[in-house]
Amino acid sequence: MDPSTRIERTLAQALDRGEGPGSPPLLAAAMRHAVMPGGARIRPKLTLAVAAACGEPLSPAVDGAAAGIELLHCASLIHDDLPCFDNADMRRGKPSVHKKFGERLAVLAGDALIVMAFDAVAHGVAAAETPERAGPLMAVLAQSVGAPMGIAAGQAWECEPRAELSAYQQAKTGSLFAGATVAGAAAAGQANHEAWRGFGERLGEAYQVADDIRDVAGNAEDEGKPVGQDGALGRPNAAMTLGLRGAVQRLTRLVDGATAEIPACPGRTALVASVEQQAQAFLPKAIWALAD
Amino acid sequence: MDPSTRIERTLAQALDRGEGPGSPPLLAAAMRHAVMPGGARIRPKLTLAVAAACGEPLSPAVDGAAAGIELLHCASLIHDDLPCFDNADMRRGKPSVHKKFGERLAVLAGDALIVMAFDAVAHGVAAAETPERAGPLMAVLAQSVGAPMGIAAGQAWECEPRAELSAYQQAKTGSLFAGATVAGAAAAGQANHEAWRGFGERLGEAYQVADDIRDVAGNAEDEGKPVGQDGALGRPNAAMTLGLRGAVQRLTRLVDGATAEIPACPGRTALVASVEQQAQAFLPKAIWALAD
Repeated sequence: MDPSTRIERTLAQALDRGEGPGSPPLLAAAMRHAVMPGGARIRPKLTLAVAAACGEPLSPAVDGAAAGIELLHCASLIHDDLPCFDNADMRRGKPSVHKKFGERLAVLAGDALIVMAFDAVAHGVAAAETPERAGPLMAVLAQSVGAPMGIAAGQAWECEPRAELSAYQQAKTGSLFAGATVAGAAAAGQANHEAWRGFGERLGEAYQVADDIRDVAGNAEDEGKPVGQDGALGRPNAAMTLGLRGAVQRLTRLVDGATAEIPACPGRTALVASVEQQAQAFLPKAIWALAD
Repeated sequence: MDPSTRIERTLAQALDRGEGPGSPPLLAAAMRHAVMPGGARIRPKLTLAVAAACGEPLSPAVDGAAAGIELLHCASLIHDDLPCFDNADMRRGKPSVHKKFGERLAVLAGDALIVMAFDAVAHGVAAAETPERAGPLMAVLAQSVGAPMGIAAGQAWECEPRAELSAYQQAKTGSLFAGATVAGAAAAGQANHEAWRGFGERLGEAYQVADDIRDVAGNAEDEGKPVGQDGALGRPNAAMTLGLRGAVQRLTRLVDGATAEIPACPGRTALVASVEQQAQAFLPKAIWALAD
């Protein structure tokens, strides 16, 4: 089964469990709206790719970890879009969750998806009969989204009178990419899963630069959300600081730096090739061409 | 070390980890504000009491589970108090988190405390060297707060055009009490930890009735928050439906029903006595006297 199919199936199973008897229908609908259909599923694909490179391509523990990472990502998007933050009306080409279901259900759907992420991991390690992997995976997921350095911390830097830019960017984007790679190794039973953090952090940095470029040079229809938001909201943006060509060059260097950090493992060569291929999808072809 | 000291120490350690290098100071302060000083810590005390009754009084896994339950409770209070829900200015005699730190940090502090709950469990089972307990504990915690039947689902019933009252109350209060008892047994390594659910659910129902009574008959100073909110917000309240004396009698019956559901275990007699004693603290003496 190809990675996309595995990811969609595991996410669908998690949502189905959340819609069991007693479930309030609007909450269930809001959660499904936030998760299905998804975006590029870059982070869970990364989790599967790392686990496969470590020699564990098919464990339900890996599927659970990948789904957990994606559910945390979806939860963070819901809360980021709330009126008190970005007040975004659109996400992935559809109304944002609070726009469609109201602010209260958006808060609750985000909360419930955070929780569902941990449940997906618990379910996966139980199905894989690898219970010893639950604790490390739970700690990795928690680190990626909580305090002091996860997504919530990254978002919180927007509320500080003085933000440390590198901590902000590292936490807001890098942390979940690092979580995706480290969780892939932990789900594959690697005791030294922390060795995978540098790779994820560099790749997250690259993705942030790509996101900055798309905010400046993309169009709303392709992105499924408004562009030009960083300038409008006064947020730091690499394409505004370095210029478009400079930012694309920086992106290329960051992807190279990321692959250089991949630890020795049975599937290293294939993983490097796959990362380089996926990084191409970070930007539309027309934008890559700008830096040629 | 007595239960209160153990709970406060484990919560303090979890908050300290969340304030590690790179932590945004306002987020850290908002999280601490929500957790310290706490309320009666009824739920984590229940977790410790159940684990002790199962014959495992002193494991760090039990401390982690108890802290996890309390952190989830604190997170739910922050999000419940938000302007889009109860819009509560006061909590535990202090400004609510959004009142003091703003709405954005209140959303993020709640998110980060949910995550910290799972991290506290991961930390506890690792310290106890009982890794096989992580998965079941993670699933129990997730069930208590997520969809379909946890706290978030309970709160979501307030957003439905037609709410099922029993599902609402069971999810909103009963689920975390059930989580507290089941987690206590799971943290103690009991394979049949689900046998503890009925006890927690009944006790949660009793606590909800006590809460309803205090909302009608208590005063804001003792409660540390406004009273009369259920009437003002049109929420169901047992003391308004049954009258004060009827509600107190119902509370007594529910506590008796809860202790009857305690499964056979080494410390059953002591646990029954402890629950009866703690239930006295659900209401001020003057209100208990009303039903005599």
